[in-house]
Amino acid sequence: MNTLLNQSFSAATAGVSLLNDALRLQGIPAQAVAWTPPLGGKDLHDVMADSRRSAANELALAKMLSSGALLVDVKPASEALNLGRGEFLHAGPPIEWARASGPMRGALIAAMLFEKMAGSAHEAEQILEKNGVALEPCHHRGAVGPMAGVVTPSMWMFELLDPSTGNKSWCSLNEGLGKVLRYGAYSPEVIERLDWMRDVLGPLLQLGVRAREEHIDVRAIISQMIQMGDEGHNRNRAGTLMFLRDLLPFMIEGGSSTDVARAARFVGGNDHFFLNLVMPACKLQTRAAENIPGSSIVTVMARNGTDFGIQTSGTGDEWFIGPAQTPHGLYLGNYTAEDANPDIGDSAITETAGIGGFSMAAAPAIVRFIGGSVPDALATTRRMYEICEGENPTFGIPVLEFRGAPTGIDVTRVLRTGILPQINTGMAGKIAGTGQVGAGLVTPPMEAFTAAIAGLARRVI
Amino acid sequence: MNTLLNQSFSAATAGVSLLNDALRLQGIPAQAVAWTPPLGGKDLHDVMADSRRSAANELALAKMLSSGALLVDVKPASEALNLGRGEFLHAGPPIEWARASGPMRGALIAAMLFEKMAGSAHEAEQILEKNGVALEPCHHRGAVGPMAGVVTPSMWMFELLDPSTGNKSWCSLNEGLGKVLRYGAYSPEVIERLDWMRDVLGPLLQLGVRAREEHIDVRAIISQMIQMGDEGHNRNRAGTLMFLRDLLPFMIEGGSSTDVARAARFVGGNDHFFLNLVMPACKLQTRAAENIPGSSIVTVMARNGTDFGIQTSGTGDEWFIGPAQTPHGLYLGNYTAEDANPDIGDSAITETAGIGGFSMAAAPAIVRFIGGSVPDALATTRRMYEICEGENPTFGIPVLEFRGAPTGIDVTRVLRTGILPQINTGMAGKIAGTGQVGAGLVTPPMEAFTAAIAGLARRVI
Repeated sequence: MNTLLNQSFSAATAGVSLLNDALRLQGIPAQAVAWTPPLGGKDLHDVMADSRRSAANELALAKMLSSGALLVDVKPASEALNLGRGEFLHAGPPIEWARASGPMRGALIAAMLFEKMAGSAHEAEQILEKNGVALEPCHHRGAVGPMAGVVTPSMWMFELLDPSTGNKSWCSLNEGLGKVLRYGAYSPEVIERLDWMRDVLGPLLQLGVRAREEHIDVRAIISQMIQMGDEGHNRNRAGTLMFLRDLLPFMIEGGSSTDVARAARFVGGNDHFFLNLVMPACKLQTRAAENIPGSSIVTVMARNGTDFGIQTSGTGDEWFIGPAQTPHGLYLGNYTAEDANPDIGDSAITETAGIGGFSMAAAPAIVRFIGGSVPDALATTRRMYEICEGENPTFGIPVLEFRGAPTGIDVTRVLRTGILPQINTGMAGKIAGTGQVGAGLVTPPMEAFTAAIAGLARRVI
Repeated sequence: MNTLLNQSFSAATAGVSLLNDALRLQGIPAQAVAWTPPLGGKDLHDVMADSRRSAANELALAKMLSSGALLVDVKPASEALNLGRGEFLHAGPPIEWARASGPMRGALIAAMLFEKMAGSAHEAEQILEKNGVALEPCHHRGAVGPMAGVVTPSMWMFELLDPSTGNKSWCSLNEGLGKVLRYGAYSPEVIERLDWMRDVLGPLLQLGVRAREEHIDVRAIISQMIQMGDEGHNRNRAGTLMFLRDLLPFMIEGGSSTDVARAARFVGGNDHFFLNLVMPACKLQTRAAENIPGSSIVTVMARNGTDFGIQTSGTGDEWFIGPAQTPHGLYLGNYTAEDANPDIGDSAITETAGIGGFSMAAAPAIVRFIGGSVPDALATTRRMYEICEGENPTFGIPVLEFRGAPTGIDVTRVLRTGILPQINTGMAGKIAGTGQVGAGLVTPPMEAFTAAIAGLARRVI
């Protein structure tokens, strides 16, 4: 000890800055280490000590990995989900008109106009303000919706089946980019496009899907697209092309050539079309892992534009909520960060299933689009392995020598490492009616995970 | 000096092993360095000293980079190339029946049957043995043909235009894999498929191409596919899908739905379909760099199954020849290395233009298919930069942070480094009629490059 005090020394400090400051004031070299105590406190301790946890998480991962996703039908939401007149679904955890953000309000207005429940945006708002429509999260019906995720009875839905569980999931048809309902736009062009999708595109897709002898294996296409520069959230180009390849011949044989040609141009001209098949496939994957007592694996991450909600396997359908964050990225045209609404949409189901931002390394071509570099993309995926239970060999990432996508977000790992899930996302304008303003990166609020660990702790036996 | 001799020492040796052996026999540690004197001797020296060379090669690269490739028409070779009855084109440098390999002979037999110039394979052989057909390399007409590359007057050709030069190039329609003419098969199924391609597919593609207001930009699609896991030689999946997306709506509008559906299935079911558009696009790129006095840039690499021939910018249409090597890779079914024919086809025009094996890093998904690893793919592309004049920013390789494809093979660099161009290729069975037996990697014979440097040296002023 004498020797130590007689020598000059330097120190490494961690935690609050008090010690570091004191040393520096005394002229002693002190290096502060970035360290914070794990979040979650006693709840985290209790969950970590839960003897069921390890096996429960292994089981959750195994169920995710063995799930499947076949496209079995396309039909209106009224049939697919028994959605009745005056019932709308929306993205994220439950929300009412009063707390809804601009793009969610805009999408609900568009939905009212599309369903002819209002003759004008003004009339639609009046009805919605009085809660004249029953709102329910897509996730409560096993469905998912990108951005505002508003689903009405007349919208056509993809219906996917997981043969390993018998579960089904649904998603509406993708409208393309720009002025579209899901980004909160409700101008006449938006409604006209939705009318055409209802009257022409939906029936044609149904005809094609029903004419095929074998179901289209959406999971197999995802496996391929991950090898073709898509990460399945912000980039779905190869997936869209493979979908078109597999379905179009049947549409050609059964439909009017004018309609089929227009449908082919519409789908082929929208690189995001396949997102609405990736999402329900991911929902089936995470749904397979639901309701395993003691499991701290995340099964849902979803945003309604105001709140970010998560669900975990061990806590059933309870939502754990925090404020939705605003994404950072690149903006279209003259839009700026000022124009962007907080995070919105069920599309974070892709990250919940290990693709999207988690598989950013598979899609170096998009990192520049959202303002990053190729090494950033690799680093992001590598970081996500730290908060995941395992890897999905079906989604092999080429540049990582086909290492499987990081899969099964573990709430305890998020809290222990402080690493939040990385989400790729589109950005909606915060004023109702604007549409898309950009695309970028966002994370959930840590509050959702501290709430989830409390929920898990309450259930420790 | 005294000091040196009194100390123990170790040696590094280069060149012939004599010195290394002598040192080791005396117990002196000696490390042999892999080094060989540059090939090409005085010819290389003369070409290196040619004051025109540096600027000529820069110009050749610049012309390659500014070339374009638009799909302007689809029509029979009789119209596109004025190919008359009894005139066949083939891959690689010139060859006669007597020296032709099995797959080349098989393809010529198929061509005779397809053109109804013979009623049986036996009769076809008899006519071909007597040189009853005029054979000419595709390259002599500005065209390119994969594998045997046999083109007959009734075959339909893609016609591509380079707006920067006004040059055109042509390639036949891809038949798919397995038992096909270009791999030397001539069974009835081969001829029936060719009949359908002549009667239905060709006219439908023509209809689609002519109905479009804007020409399909093949070079732009290549730029995209390089970002989608294709390298444009052994993998053309994304390219094929984008081609289908861009052309099919016009075919749907103009054709019979039964025919269009079959065509859509045929093209969509053949991941190599777009190869036959990539190849003439690459030919236009290298053609733009032809005939620059003093330039040592390679403008053609092509194989006829017996010989491997190259041409350089500074030596016009003179062929420099060496023996075609046999590829190494993976074999289909029960085939082995014993069944593989030496290297065949004009498809090495893709490597000549910087993609294919040169852009292997863009296509990690295929390296396993041909028996390699992801790091191998990166190393291959990095090695190719050493023998190239420059990089093509239009073909940015994502995993290399969008570094441009290595472009413009310089004969002097090949000889100085001893690094041969890396070619990805299909493998044909060496017995006529077999078809494809595998896919793998191959290099040109060094003899072609030593012959080329001699040809360049002869032209030094």
